[in-house]
Amino acid sequence: MQAPFTSLDGFRAVFNALPQRDASAVQTAIARNEQLTKPKGSLGQLEDLGFWYAGWRGDGRPSLERPQVVIFAGNHGIAARGVSAFPPEVTVQMVANFRAGGAAINQLSRVAGAAMSVVELDLDRPTADFTKAPAMTEAELVAALAAGWEAVDDDADLLVVGEMGIGNTTAAAAVAAGLFGGSAADWTGCGTGVVGDALAGKTRVVAEGLALHAEHLADPVEVLRRLGGRELAAMAGAILRARAGRIPVILDGFICTASAAVLARIAPHALDHAVAGHVSAEGAHRALLDRLGKEPLLNLGLRLGEATGAVLAIGVLRGALACLSGMATFAEAGVSKG
Amino acid sequence: MQAPFTSLDGFRAVFNALPQRDASAVQTAIARNEQLTKPKGSLGQLEDLGFWYAGWRGDGRPSLERPQVVIFAGNHGIAARGVSAFPPEVTVQMVANFRAGGAAINQLSRVAGAAMSVVELDLDRPTADFTKAPAMTEAELVAALAAGWEAVDDDADLLVVGEMGIGNTTAAAAVAAGLFGGSAADWTGCGTGVVGDALAGKTRVVAEGLALHAEHLADPVEVLRRLGGRELAAMAGAILRARAGRIPVILDGFICTASAAVLARIAPHALDHAVAGHVSAEGAHRALLDRLGKEPLLNLGLRLGEATGAVLAIGVLRGALACLSGMATFAEAGVSKG
Repeated sequence: MQAPFTSLDGFRAVFNALPQRDASAVQTAIARNEQLTKPKGSLGQLEDLGFWYAGWRGDGRPSLERPQVVIFAGNHGIAARGVSAFPPEVTVQMVANFRAGGAAINQLSRVAGAAMSVVELDLDRPTADFTKAPAMTEAELVAALAAGWEAVDDDADLLVVGEMGIGNTTAAAAVAAGLFGGSAADWTGCGTGVVGDALAGKTRVVAEGLALHAEHLADPVEVLRRLGGRELAAMAGAILRARAGRIPVILDGFICTASAAVLARIAPHALDHAVAGHVSAEGAHRALLDRLGKEPLLNLGLRLGEATGAVLAIGVLRGALACLSGMATFAEAGVSKG
Repeated sequence: MQAPFTSLDGFRAVFNALPQRDASAVQTAIARNEQLTKPKGSLGQLEDLGFWYAGWRGDGRPSLERPQVVIFAGNHGIAARGVSAFPPEVTVQMVANFRAGGAAINQLSRVAGAAMSVVELDLDRPTADFTKAPAMTEAELVAALAAGWEAVDDDADLLVVGEMGIGNTTAAAAVAAGLFGGSAADWTGCGTGVVGDALAGKTRVVAEGLALHAEHLADPVEVLRRLGGRELAAMAGAILRARAGRIPVILDGFICTASAAVLARIAPHALDHAVAGHVSAEGAHRALLDRLGKEPLLNLGLRLGEATGAVLAIGVLRGALACLSGMATFAEAGVSKG
């Protein structure tokens, strides 16, 4: 669906009409769950996950049929500052790898039974180095937000977004610091494997960006425009589109969560349709999830991005929905309720 | 395959010839993983899981084709002591529910693509009340161990075992205390939902059993015979059979882990072919995993048993193997290695 905005004012207006979950579908799911052949509460987080999904789909006995995974790729001016263990050309090389089916996310999407696609965002035009200027112009930001919105399949019943972009943990750290305060060191981590002097340099780049834009960070949209990147903006646009269409979202790692956090800073309830798929090994991810009040489903030490952690969590959601919608009740099975 | 033992001495003899992992397959997998298109180490625990599976299957680029789930059901003399929130007849009712496809484990096995079967162990003859006598005779224990061994499909490439048996968290608590020491209170938890006075009573039953058999608990096999139950013994027999056939195992919750722990107390390396699928909400499960040096893959607050947590973890293993065996290398994909 075409994005309903062509300006940042239009983007902001979307937040005035966000749909809420269907409380009656949640009640139906809760009532059904009470009757299923298991001790009460014994499926733990799977039960909550089922209620959450039921509410957003408006179906008390829901199924997952069409999960969609979209990977957004962007290039970053700050990559020239040596903030990554990999050279900037790896972004375009990995896009080719995604298309050829060779990346981790291809394998995991297949296992999860999810359709996967890749959206390249002006890879030949990196964002500006945010230590010198805003990363994006308003027009560039609007275009990236709209690209995210338009990448979502109207028929999807679950959305997972991921990213590829050499330098983008640096951008995500700057965005997180811009949104929530704290020092560059609080939010800057190893990314693809940056340690020692290189990590100190990466942290310095984030600090320089925060200092340059310090007077403009009260507005979350400006944080995204000045310190983010096209794939971060596209993920935010896609997650907002999912909300508008009552499509539940599983969040991936640090960069995805930083992008999503922009929405929550604009409107506190804007991420109610999203759960955290996992907590990554990137140090600040846990802190970011804590700020958003999200408890991760998985904690497997992943730090790859590409939506890998979120797509692994699709398996957990499939299990939750299979139990909620497929199990027999005590009455149906002739089991004593205790 | 028929069990290679007809006595407890025969069972003990199996431990003298346990196969080890194939170190060269592990090396092949490690070398391949280094070349895959991702930052080194960025798949976290998935990478270790792939190496573990490669080693036990003797294949450096393995796949998972035939996972097997077996649920063992048994009845317990101590159930008459009011240790469960459910009446004892629920064991046989739930077996019918498993066969009809209505239980949680049916739904989760389907999602995981695993074959599931149920083995009933003399449900009309509960074990003896262990506060009055050993739960099983030697012949009963041997029969249950052998039933577990024989339930494993020789062609399986992954084994998950689970249980159903009203009263069996009480038996598992007694077995854990017998194997590792500590008080009844250290190991006794809520099970299906036992709280307050009922939990105090359950703990008292465990303490009575430990006191009665105190002089016979140095031998792990005697711990299992005196305090365990048929489904616990069968799980131990099945896990040992898997080891003999180099079939990797994913452990489920507290009861499964207590059963497996018997093997580790007989021979410290007897569970090297097993990983912990999850840590359950049953309080003592984490302590038991710590004693075995196993880090759980999932932590979702489950406390249902039936192999549910382990079967959910099959999805994580599938993802790990899909990445290890399916991803392109840097050379194949033309991606710069950084």
